Amino acid sequence: MLYDLVIIGGGPAGVSAGIYAARQKLNILLIAKTSGGQMARKAVDIENYPGFEKISGLDLIQKFEKHLRKNKIDIERDKVKDVKKTSSGFVVATGAGQRFETKAVLIASGADPRPLEVPGEKEFIGKGVSYCTACDGPLFSDKVVAVAGGGNAGFEAAIVLAQYAKKISILEFNSEIKADQENIELVKKSGKISIITNAALKEIKGRNFVDAIIYEDRKSKKIITLPVEGVFVEIGSIPATKFVKDLVEFNKRDEIVVDPKTNMTKTPGLFAAGDVTDIKHKQIVVAAGQGCQAALSIYEYLRHQS
Amino acid sequence: MLYDLVIIGGGPAGVSAGIYAARQKLNILLIAKTSGGQMARKAVDIENYPGFEKISGLDLIQKFEKHLRKNKIDIERDKVKDVKKTSSGFVVATGAGQRFETKAVLIASGADPRPLEVPGEKEFIGKGVSYCTACDGPLFSDKVVAVAGGGNAGFEAAIVLAQYAKKISILEFNSEIKADQENIELVKKSGKISIITNAALKEIKGRNFVDAIIYEDRKSKKIITLPVEGVFVEIGSIPATKFVKDLVEFNKRDEIVVDPKTNMTKTPGLFAAGDVTDIKHKQIVVAAGQGCQAALSIYEYLRHQS
Repeated sequence: MLYDLVIIGGGPAGVSAGIYAARQKLNILLIAKTSGGQMARKAVDIENYPGFEKISGLDLIQKFEKHLRKNKIDIERDKVKDVKKTSSGFVVATGAGQRFETKAVLIASGADPRPLEVPGEKEFIGKGVSYCTACDGPLFSDKVVAVAGGGNAGFEAAIVLAQYAKKISILEFNSEIKADQENIELVKKSGKISIITNAALKEIKGRNFVDAIIYEDRKSKKIITLPVEGVFVEIGSIPATKFVKDLVEFNKRDEIVVDPKTNMTKTPGLFAAGDVTDIKHKQIVVAAGQGCQAALSIYEYLRHQS
Repeated sequence: MLYDLVIIGGGPAGVSAGIYAARQKLNILLIAKTSGGQMARKAVDIENYPGFEKISGLDLIQKFEKHLRKNKIDIERDKVKDVKKTSSGFVVATGAGQRFETKAVLIASGADPRPLEVPGEKEFIGKGVSYCTACDGPLFSDKVVAVAGGGNAGFEAAIVLAQYAKKISILEFNSEIKADQENIELVKKSGKISIITNAALKEIKGRNFVDAIIYEDRKSKKIITLPVEGVFVEIGSIPATKFVKDLVEFNKRDEIVVDPKTNMTKTPGLFAAGDVTDIKHKQIVVAAGQGCQAALSIYEYLRHQS
């Protein structure tokens, strides 16, 4: 079986591409371990995807998934391990050992949470260290927690945690926070959240569970121990590109460089869309727009091949 | 009153930008004669805006409008006549003679239907000549009509007209049609629609109402008279940019050239998004994605100004 297109990823870019490509009657396989991509980790309601005033990440995922499945498209619940170029197209290999042949590939695999890479982090995953406020927030009722990262994701995590936790500290490495005005105001209003800038996280400590974090105040150079029972890591993300190496060009942030009008990579037939690419603003509607662009460009590419 | 941002246009790009900019607490005015932009002229249901499996253009417009108005934003129902650069920003003048001062401008004015520019066209507007199948289709019950244009818009118009009209001819100037597979199959299925390629439309004739179109068969060079009672013009669109001239760069298609990652034009502080720009694929979700990108870029631009 030779596919026209294999889409890697089930977030907004992959789903949008799937809808558009299916409407062009392409023969499509979408491979994704789970549905919805990073929307599944979204802690607060989504209020900025045009058309939905306020919707939870899980509800929007369901709507996307239903919309996608209304079209003729094969779906494989697996991780992609490898993409190889062949004389006629590509072979995509999955974790479970399947191999799929295809004329074109769209990488829409999004991004994974960026780890802190400090001692204690790996050890305490699931024992106080979390990368998903939406999933784990409710477990920290009446506890004292820290959020690593003073961007929008960190602020949104803190706002959600304020519903459960007793006290929340946001730790930001830089001297300035980078969150939106809306989020800054919500954090101020909560009365439970304090912001610590210039904080370089050094270690996560505990016995069976986390009981403190250690950070350096980058101004005074002092080492400070902050007793906390949980650490939510929100310091950005790493593009999920392990399965593709020399076929694409990467920028400094390890994002795949694409032609911004067609979403083609440096390899003809290999496209990328959404947060895995070098787009500037990582937003659901931007990723969905990119998925659409990519699908229509792939359709044109395939027409010129045949 | 000095605005942070004036958005020109109320289609998907303008609405999306409005939602995003309002969430950044910018002081915004959106100017648009009507709501929804080109979605209002959409004849068939929208099935490709991710999240909505099937929704009419008017229903999606309502959802967008409601989402927009949930945010703090001034809205002015008028046409923009002129945008001028000042020392501190821009002045936007409207048809009704109002003048609004602003630090930044987003042009999201979309595109208007492209006219045929043949004798009889202007004369018979509203008397058989239409640029909006969604609006005028039902008036042609049991009549014989022509659709000028063999792209997706022309095919979609014909599919909708097949619900009302007795017989429909699609006239395409080129030797090949450019519609999507899905639309081609629907047209074939209808049994009422014929496709005439290589047809150069020369004139629209009639007395009080249209009674025929005259076209040249570009292969045989023969002049052919086709008796029809209606002509639906679907030959593309013209970017709505009359109010801005030397402040931006245009491509061959009169579209505004923007930096594809920030949506900035050649004039700092002046941005453009959606179908008015040189994006390749004119789709609702692409325009919405662009509006988001532009709003976040404008927020960054204003932060660096102050």
